[in-house]
Order: sequence, then C-alpha cells, then structure tokens
Amino acid sequence: MLLSKLVCERTKEAPQDAKIKSHILLSRAGFIKQVANGIYTMTMPCQKMSRKIQEIIRQEMDALDGQEVLFPVVMPREIWDQSGRYTSIGSEMVRFKDRADRDMLLGMTHEEAAVHLANHIVSSYNQLPMMIYQLQTKFRDEARSRGGLIRVREFTMKDAYSFHSTKEDLEKYYDRMFDAYYRIFRRIGLKRFIDIKSDSGMMGGSIAHEFMLLTEVGEDSIVLCNGCDYRANMEVADGIISTPASEEKPLELVFTGEDKTIEEVSARLNVSPELTCKAVVFAVKGSSDELVIAFVRGDLEVNEAKLKKVLLKDIVPYDGGASEVLACGNLGPVGLDKSIITVFDKSLENISSLVIGANKAEYHYTGFNFKRDLPSAKFDNIAKTRSGDRCPVCGGELKVENGIEIGNIFQLGTKYTKSMDMTVHGADGVEFNPIMGCYGIGVGRAIASIAQESSDEKGLILPMSVAPWQVHMCPLRLDDENVNAKAYKLYDELVKAGIDVLFDDRSVAAGVKFNDADLMGMPIRVVVSPKSLATQEVEITVRETKESQKVSYQDAIGVIENIIKEQMSRLKG
Amino acid sequence: MLLSKLVCERTKEAPQDAKIKSHILLSRAGFIKQVANGIYTMTMPCQKMSRKIQEIIRQEMDALDGQEVLFPVVMPREIWDQSGRYTSIGSEMVRFKDRADRDMLLGMTHEEAAVHLANHIVSSYNQLPMMIYQLQTKFRDEARSRGGLIRVREFTMKDAYSFHSTKEDLEKYYDRMFDAYYRIFRRIGLKRFIDIKSDSGMMGGSIAHEFMLLTEVGEDSIVLCNGCDYRANMEVADGIISTPASEEKPLELVFTGEDKTIEEVSARLNVSPELTCKAVVFAVKGSSDELVIAFVRGDLEVNEAKLKKVLLKDIVPYDGGASEVLACGNLGPVGLDKSIITVFDKSLENISSLVIGANKAEYHYTGFNFKRDLPSAKFDNIAKTRSGDRCPVCGGELKVENGIEIGNIFQLGTKYTKSMDMTVHGADGVEFNPIMGCYGIGVGRAIASIAQESSDEKGLILPMSVAPWQVHMCPLRLDDENVNAKAYKLYDELVKAGIDVLFDDRSVAAGVKFNDADLMGMPIRVVVSPKSLATQEVEITVRETKESQKVSYQDAIGVIENIIKEQMSRLKG
Repeated sequence: MLLSKLVCERTKEAPQDAKIKSHILLSRAGFIKQVANGIYTMTMPCQKMSRKIQEIIRQEMDALDGQEVLFPVVMPREIWDQSGRYTSIGSEMVRFKDRADRDMLLGMTHEEAAVHLANHIVSSYNQLPMMIYQLQTKFRDEARSRGGLIRVREFTMKDAYSFHSTKEDLEKYYDRMFDAYYRIFRRIGLKRFIDIKSDSGMMGGSIAHEFMLLTEVGEDSIVLCNGCDYRANMEVADGIISTPASEEKPLELVFTGEDKTIEEVSARLNVSPELTCKAVVFAVKGSSDELVIAFVRGDLEVNEAKLKKVLLKDIVPYDGGASEVLACGNLGPVGLDKSIITVFDKSLENISSLVIGANKAEYHYTGFNFKRDLPSAKFDNIAKTRSGDRCPVCGGELKVENGIEIGNIFQLGTKYTKSMDMTVHGADGVEFNPIMGCYGIGVGRAIASIAQESSDEKGLILPMSVAPWQVHMCPLRLDDENVNAKAYKLYDELVKAGIDVLFDDRSVAAGVKFNDADLMGMPIRVVVSPKSLATQEVEITVRETKESQKVSYQDAIGVIENIIKEQMSRLKG
Repeated sequence: MLLSKLVCERTKEAPQDAKIKSHILLSRAGFIKQVANGIYTMTMPCQKMSRKIQEIIRQEMDALDGQEVLFPVVMPREIWDQSGRYTSIGSEMVRFKDRADRDMLLGMTHEEAAVHLANHIVSSYNQLPMMIYQLQTKFRDEARSRGGLIRVREFTMKDAYSFHSTKEDLEKYYDRMFDAYYRIFRRIGLKRFIDIKSDSGMMGGSIAHEFMLLTEVGEDSIVLCNGCDYRANMEVADGIISTPASEEKPLELVFTGEDKTIEEVSARLNVSPELTCKAVVFAVKGSSDELVIAFVRGDLEVNEAKLKKVLLKDIVPYDGGASEVLACGNLGPVGLDKSIITVFDKSLENISSLVIGANKAEYHYTGFNFKRDLPSAKFDNIAKTRSGDRCPVCGGELKVENGIEIGNIFQLGTKYTKSMDMTVHGADGVEFNPIMGCYGIGVGRAIASIAQESSDEKGLILPMSVAPWQVHMCPLRLDDENVNAKAYKLYDELVKAGIDVLFDDRSVAAGVKFNDADLMGMPIRVVVSPKSLATQEVEITVRETKESQKVSYQDAIGVIENIIKEQMSRLKG
C-alpha cells in the first residue's frame, strides 16, 4: 500500500475530547474518524487490524467447535418479548417502528436470536453440546460513550452461545472457553490482563468472569493481591482492614461547634480519622421516607454495591432534602430515630475508643465503644477496599488497579431456553431446557486496549499479529534514481514474500516520514536512503525495542522474515 | 464439520411463502431461518458461503487499489441533510431518535459516509484517484421483501466509492470496475448474467450499469437481441415493431353497441387487434384535472417509463373517477376534449386502415388513417417491447427475459462532493469537487442467485469456489468398525490437506444421507461403505455432473484434489 493514497490523515493534535492515550493515538494516526457521538468510521489501517483480530478470534472459536452464523442487527419485538427483555432493558436499546408499524429493535446482544435459531432445529440431547457464534455489528445507545473506541455506541462484537445437556458439561465447556480467551488476548498482543469473577448482571445466570486489561484509564476498579491470585471487582472485594490501636475511655459528650466533617472534627479533637465514625445517608430507591445510614470508619468510604447486598434493597444517595429525623445534626449510632435503617461496617467493631456524632447540633461523643455502648450492633462488610488492605485469602497486601473490560463469559443457565420454550429430548426421552453459556469480545474495544497498552510518547507500537502492515518502508530521496529503483524493488519482493508493507512514497522530509512511522506503529521500519545504499545496505528498526541494524540489501528480506517470526513466536496463544 | 452437530435443519417442505427455487432450496437445506419479514439468520453453511463470496469480492476490490474501511450502520441526520437525502428518501429508510433525542438513521447506502470520511483527509489531486469500500450490514425497509434472500430488508453489501480528478479518469476506473464485476460473478459461479445500461435513479449521476442474472423468477424485464449485443431494461428498450399490412378504406362510423375492449371490438368487426387502436388513460401525478391518453396499437401495451420520458411529467394510472371530458365513451384520437394530452405510439403511424374509438357511446370508426385523417399527429415510442420485435441496432430478433439485479455501478459525478462541500486542490492550485463513482454488490442476493441458477430438482449444486464445504462425506454403516476407522481417517486426512469437509456421522439410512447431500449441494460426495471397502475403494460423485467413480482408498485424496482443481480452473475470473 502506498501511503500517499491512504485515506488516513496523521495529525499533530488530537480531537479536543480525546483525553486518553488510545483515543488520542488512534485519532492522531488517522485510524478512526468520528461520525457522531460514539459512532466511528474505521479507516483502512484500523479495519485491517480489526480483521486480523477477528481472524484470531474465529480460529479460537472454530477450535472449540464453534459454528459461525450471522444473526440480524434488526430484530422484531416478538422474540425479545419472550425473554422479557424488550421491556426490562432501558433506553440503551434502540427501538423503532418499521413501515408496517411493527416494533423493531437494534440488537445489543443476541441470546434471543441464538435461541430462536436453535429452537426446534436442535431437538435432541445428541446434538449437544453445540456452540454458535457471530462477528457482527451491535448498537447500544450508551449514555456516556467516551474514549474513542473504548466505549462506543456502535461496535463489532464476537458473541458466542453454547447449549448443553448438563451443568457439568457447560462447566467443562466454560473452562475451555476461559482458556481460549486467554489465548486470544495473548495472541492479539495484550499483556497486563486478568480474569475476575463477576456478577452476571442483566445476562442472568450465576457464574461469570470478566477479562480486564489493567490500565490507569480503566473505568473499573479491581482489587488484586500481591501474595496470591485473589482478585475481585471493587464491587465485591472483601479486603481485611486492620484495627488501629486505641485505649478504652469513658463516653463523653464534647462540644464541637461548627466542625462537622471528619477532617474538622478529628483536627479539633486531635484524633486520627481512623478513630472516628463516618455516617453516610442514603434513601431507599422509590421510597423517599425510608432512610439508611451507613456507618464506616472515618478514613474509609462506603461501597454502595456491598451495602445494597446487605440491605437487599436498591438505594440512592440521599439528596439532602429536609428531613425531620435528621434535623438533630452530627449523626451517630446512638439515639437515632427508630425509622432509620442503620448498617455498621466491620471496621468499627473492635475499636476501643471512637469519636461519633451525638445526634445533637454542635456535639460529638468521644470514647464510644460499640461492644460496651451498643452491644446490639451487628457488623457487615460495607467499606470500599483500599490499596494496603489485607487479602481475605492469604493475608497478603491488596492493591487497587483500574481496568477495562475486554471480554466476558457467562454461565447463563436456562433463563433463555425456559422463557423462550426451547426443549430437547433427553436420553431418557424426557424433555428438558438446554443450559446455556454466552461469551463476548468487542473487537473495537480490543483495538483500543492494544493502543492503550502498546504505545509510547511517539505513537502506537502494534503487535506483529494484528498490525495492519508488518513493515513500514521509509525510502528517503525517492528522486534519487538508485533509491527509487532499489526501494520499489524491495517493496515488490517483500509483498511477493507475503509480507504486508506500507510504503511511504511521499516527497517529504525524513523527519516527517519517521514521525508518521512512529505514530502509526508498524512493528518494523525499513529505511532505504542514498546513505544506506552507499554501502549496499538498508536500515531496519524494530518499533518496540527501537533497536536499529544496518543490513545488506540482499539480506533484508531474510532479516525481516526472522524478526516477524521471532515476534510472532512470542504471540502464540 | 460433523453433520450431527450442525445447527441446520434439512426439511422436505419449504415454508409456505417460499415460491421460488432459491428460497425453497435455501430454506429446505437449512441455510437460512426467517426471524421477521425480510430478516434472516444465516446458519453456518450460509455464512461460510457468504464469507467465501466476500473474500472473492475483497480480492477484486483490493486489485483495484481499494481500501477496505468500515462505515457505521447508524448515522446521524446531519450528514444526510447535507446531501438532501434525509428528506428525499422515503419510508424505506429507517429513522429513529437516540436517547439524546437526536435524529439517527440506518444506512441503506453510504455515499454520505464516504464523503464524510474523505472530506478534508483527501485534499489534493495528488491523492486521487482513490477508492474506499466496505462489506457491511445495510437495512432497507422494503415494502415488498420476498423470495428469501432475493429481496430482504437486512443484508450484507459490498459498497465501493471512488473519487477522481477528471471525468476521463472516472471513466477509465469505471471500466476497470466493470471488468472486475464480470470476474467476481464468474468466480462465484454465476453463468447467465449480463450487464445493461440503466437509469441511475436515486443515486444521481448519469452513466450506470446493472448486472443482471437472467432467470425466469427475476422481477426485472430485460430485452435482448439474438443478433447483436443490444440489451436494455424494459423501461428503456426500443424494439422496432413491424407494421401489419392493410388496405386504405374510407372513414366510416360503425355501431359497436356494448363492445368496448379490443377483443370485443375486433371480434365484432372481424379485424385483427393489430389493426385497432387502444387508448389508455393516465392522470398527471398531483393534478387530478390533467389527463393523458396514450394511444398504442390494440395488441401492444403502454410502457409507462417511456411515456413519462415523452411527457416529462410523472403520471399515475387514471383511477376511473367520473370525468366529463371522458363521458363520451369509446376513446379515440379524433374529437377529444382539447384539455386532454394525447400521445401516439409509433406503431400506429403507418397503418393504412385502423379501427378507433369514436368518442361516442356505442360507436367506433373503421378505416382511420393517421396521415390522411389526423396529419398533425406526432408519434413517439411508448409501447412495451415484446419478444419477436426487431432490434433497433441490427434488426435481429428481440427476446424479453426476466432478470435479478446482482450488482450495479454508477458514475455519480459531483452530486455528493458538491452538496457536502468536498473540494481538493488541483495541479493549478484551483479547488474542485472530486468526481465520484459508486459500486454495489449484495452478498445475500448473490447467494440466492447462485441457488436459483445452480440447482436441480434434488437440491443445490454449489460452485466449488463458494461451497461451504468442498466435500460431503457419506460413510454408510459407521457401526462397522472398518468403515468407521477408514471413514474418519479419510476425513482427517482431507482436512489436513486443507480441504473443507462435511462429515455425515449420523446413524441414518443411506437414502437419508444421499438426499441431504443432494439437497445441501456440496460439489463432491464421497461414500465409504462396507461394499466399497470390500474392494478397498470409495465412491466419489460430482454433484454437478452426477458422475460417479470408484477410486481406490489410497488415491481418494488425489482424485478429490484433482476434481477441486479442475472445477476451480473453470471458475477463474
């Protein structure tokens, strides 16, 4: 491919809304162009990369006996009514009427389509297990699309659906899929990724895993142990928080005036925030009368997801509206209105002497001791885990990192086969609902993840397995007849050898060519110049290591083939 | 692939609405499953076939320096407002509001997206010509989806867009694309297809060609000459209609009573319909007062498209409502109300003695002669061409055939670059709007066309280049240890040799296996049975020719490879 013809504009500046590296670099390298909020056109380099990733995914799915099918993007309401999701999914699902006034929708996932296809066709346990998958466009009307290809509204996704006779068979297959996901992510060149158990959310079912790329720009917080392989989503992480030492003292009402925040009160009383008690108020969703106060140690935060699990109720932050029962001010565990639900975090349980609100304006108590002063209190784990907390499994040190979800797998169970009335005959002649699993990978998200992880200040550093071109040729001084002839000859020979080459045929300065090559990130750069040819050589630079070598013109193809081979061997699944 | 696991149900009966062969066979073979009107899921065999077709298209597009990109399915109103098509296209385009209440639409074509991408990125004549293309899902809310994959609402399409500095450059590129289209259709195994010049319709621009598969189930009528390469869409075909002999006679008013139709009048007066004059009434669209009467020979039909071109007005069939000016009855060319627009077909011009309506109830004229009795009449070509008419180029015999459009190419001109304000710098520094071409092929339509053309009473006969599997193995009596071992061994070796094999591993009767193999249409059937193995042989049958041969077990792979090679050599572009 000649760079001069490539519809792909490299720029110095990124779009104003581009805040994270992958968005900035994919935009600056001209890989993507925004068409609307969260909707992009992929230019040739990006689409080539996308296709290489798709091909790796396809190979791994086929190796699991996957059958590639194609479900429609536009689906009728009927099959989504069967599962109940036509109404249960919110405005992230696009709904419209067709010209015959029928309710249609844009697929954001395809469980319903998979069951619709398999139903009746698969009628015997003999036909199980089986897995169908597709690589298809999906649309989710995300409220907060962001970060270029990280969170978009339209995207290409691999979604796979497996059907099984028994839970054990699903679990066995699930494990194979789990391994395939590791192979896929390694093969496309991702490095710092992990799997974590997750809630399956709207998908239904029980066991599920998310695969996370660890990166500071991730939206998800993940808790990892440095001593064992414990890891969990922040939402469910159970770090052990050590109790600070303190001496038991008598309970004493003290004047604290206008000081209300943990910082103010602990400063006034000269007490560490670890020895204070924080009260956070929530309202039960849909019931403005019902209030919840969560108490945690002053230096900790409330983990709302854990609090919800304890309450078995959905909650929203209290909007601060006038409330008689809160009118007392300086909230504390003792003497609250009985109508208020209270939850106490485990971190408070064993502290000998705490500062708490006195439920009275301008006053706190010091010397509060739960066991002594409120023996009826029960304690739950509702605090956010922090870096430095101890691992619940091995006692090692926990670390909180950010992550991007790059794939997920779910054991769905019979939610969809039951609701859509899909049954098959068992060996004993009895009909049953097959047990399903589903498995997703977003291709655009994978591209963004690679860009986020494999890049430096100059640009992208694309893994050999997915780079649109393996070689980026920068001939200098194409007006020099010798350079021209030798450069084009090498280009032709590389292409003939089956190597993907981008050839910078422009009459621009060497610096411009090198900057573009660094920005676009192909794994190997080849420079042919009057200077290199003076010694019958070309210069070969590996983008990843920045190592350059001069190689004789005749040996160039062999050397390039070896670099490709060596890099690909590191990208084996 | 093991047939027992394939999610693809073969049936004896087709769906009730399946009327044409491709729809019946693709349904019966389990290649497609309807999800909603005009919306299908493709099962693995169909998707494999689709991918092979896509790969052939991709190779031909890449050979024309095409850059594969990916435009979004969902687009914002803004870019379609620029071209004016947001409002000019009717309800076949799906429009909806996103969650932020912005107008969005589903792409049914991507000229706007192509110009949106190229605009600003391509800024100099140096970067031209260039072509971008995609293989992507499109949605058109067809009022009359029909025929399985023939006319659907959702489909995968290859759409390409080229940009040029000069009309000459576009024409040169257009010719190369024209040739590539022939290669693509030949390579995917289509046989009876032609190109015809066409109106470019809603695409704008001037020169355009449609590629048509000739088949009786086609919706389009095409006129072909047996003597030269003249061919035209019925809408524009100009057949020469010979004038029947007749003797000049005096004009005479004759009583014809209640007889009004051509049949009735020619029977009553004992005159051939060729010597009568038919009047067909239309109303000018949007103006109920303005009437048009088209006169053609009694045995001919009016071609509305040609009539519109003569009138330069859009017309609709007259709804028969009360009209004073038509009250006279028995319509004829003489004595009509002056407000009525009349158009006379060339077929009437030279007839010596015609029967015409007298514009008077219960009466006709006989012996009418245009030259003598209405010398002011002008004649236009407004009759439908029929099989047997003469070719306007060589005088040969014309034949009317039906066809399915399998591809189209357009010289768009500057309609989109102008309306969307895309300019590039010329060599002289002056900015200009690039000249565009666009080029489409529907992949599902291609699958249906292959099924329509390559099939027999037993099922599909898929071309080697696009068949999902090249070989369909039918081992008989897999409960026989020897058959089992030999069959699976051959299967493994074929797969190792890079051959796509479908393996019927079911314990069903030979007849069931053979019927399924015939129905699904893989090019080569291989039977391994106790009988064949008694002589250390397998039976190889070519689906297309029905020719069977017994081949020694050891030679089987070599023979199969040769059949593949031979068939592929016939599918070269």
